[in-house]
Amino acid sequence: MTHTATIQPLTAQAFAPFGDVISTDAATQAFTINRGSTERFHDLANVQLLGVQARVLVSIFRAQPRPSPYTIEMMERHPFGSQAFVPLNNRPYWVAVALPQLSEISPTDVQVFLAQAHQGVNYHAGVWHHPLMALDDVSDFLVIDRLGLESNCDELSLTGALQLVRGLK
Amino acid sequence: MTHTATIQPLTAQAFAPFGDVISTDAATQAFTINRGSTERFHDLANVQLLGVQARVLVSIFRAQPRPSPYTIEMMERHPFGSQAFVPLNNRPYWVAVALPQLSEISPTDVQVFLAQAHQGVNYHAGVWHHPLMALDDVSDFLVIDRLGLESNCDELSLTGALQLVRGLK
Repeated sequence: MTHTATIQPLTAQAFAPFGDVISTDAATQAFTINRGSTERFHDLANVQLLGVQARVLVSIFRAQPRPSPYTIEMMERHPFGSQAFVPLNNRPYWVAVALPQLSEISPTDVQVFLAQAHQGVNYHAGVWHHPLMALDDVSDFLVIDRLGLESNCDELSLTGALQLVRGLK
Repeated sequence: MTHTATIQPLTAQAFAPFGDVISTDAATQAFTINRGSTERFHDLANVQLLGVQARVLVSIFRAQPRPSPYTIEMMERHPFGSQAFVPLNNRPYWVAVALPQLSEISPTDVQVFLAQAHQGVNYHAGVWHHPLMALDDVSDFLVIDRLGLESNCDELSLTGALQLVRGLK
């Protein structure tokens, strides 16, 4: 039997167990710089670089859009580093996460969010998440993650299928 | 006398003495991930974190647009870290840079580029650059830079004024 996800709006508070929301409205520090011409929304993501010879990577992911309904059956995690996604094309996307301590994930363990176009997310190290789920059209995301010596991707099948349906705007 | 800048299109090759262009078309490595749903344009910026207790910062800068013509009279540099800017609102912006070894900067030492909406830039540590110059409207940029113990911003007045005029599209 396929379980259907409740899709929540993305807020910094609801996402806190999984990582950071990267947006001006999630900022806890903001100040004016450059002689008043710019406002700096400061330090929005905890970039984690663990393990041996770790360094930060900046990349662009170009994602094909997912249809609705869309069924997810697996998740992945990166034990040695955080991974941030920031949308570059002003389109919303889905985010599905589960707590890092889980060694088995049932559909009801998964929390699903609709991220708005102005919101990035930063998954903390070890947080289970579904690969990027763009919506509506091919979409580019700036990605900030980690390169190092260790293998840094675990995958796990869900114990059952979880269906995502576009509804919330 | 005010010198008027020649504004060049931004390319990875022309910008190489100053840093990296962050865009899919500047990528030297790209590969498919997530079972074919995503293309990863990999490792687009050399993020430099020098000095004591250095860590990477992810922030958003919200910049007021500059008028045209606009006159610049100073530049700044960050000796202990790179600083990347990636546009989030699909608008072009101006980039003005000079080589890091200069201890005096004349208007003719400054190279000015028009960066397109899909192009980020990463200034390497020590490269002289003008503060963010958004165009057309208030614009947000994702910024990847460095926090650490040392003071990390030098400023220098140009030996003469340099005028930027919007022309190139």
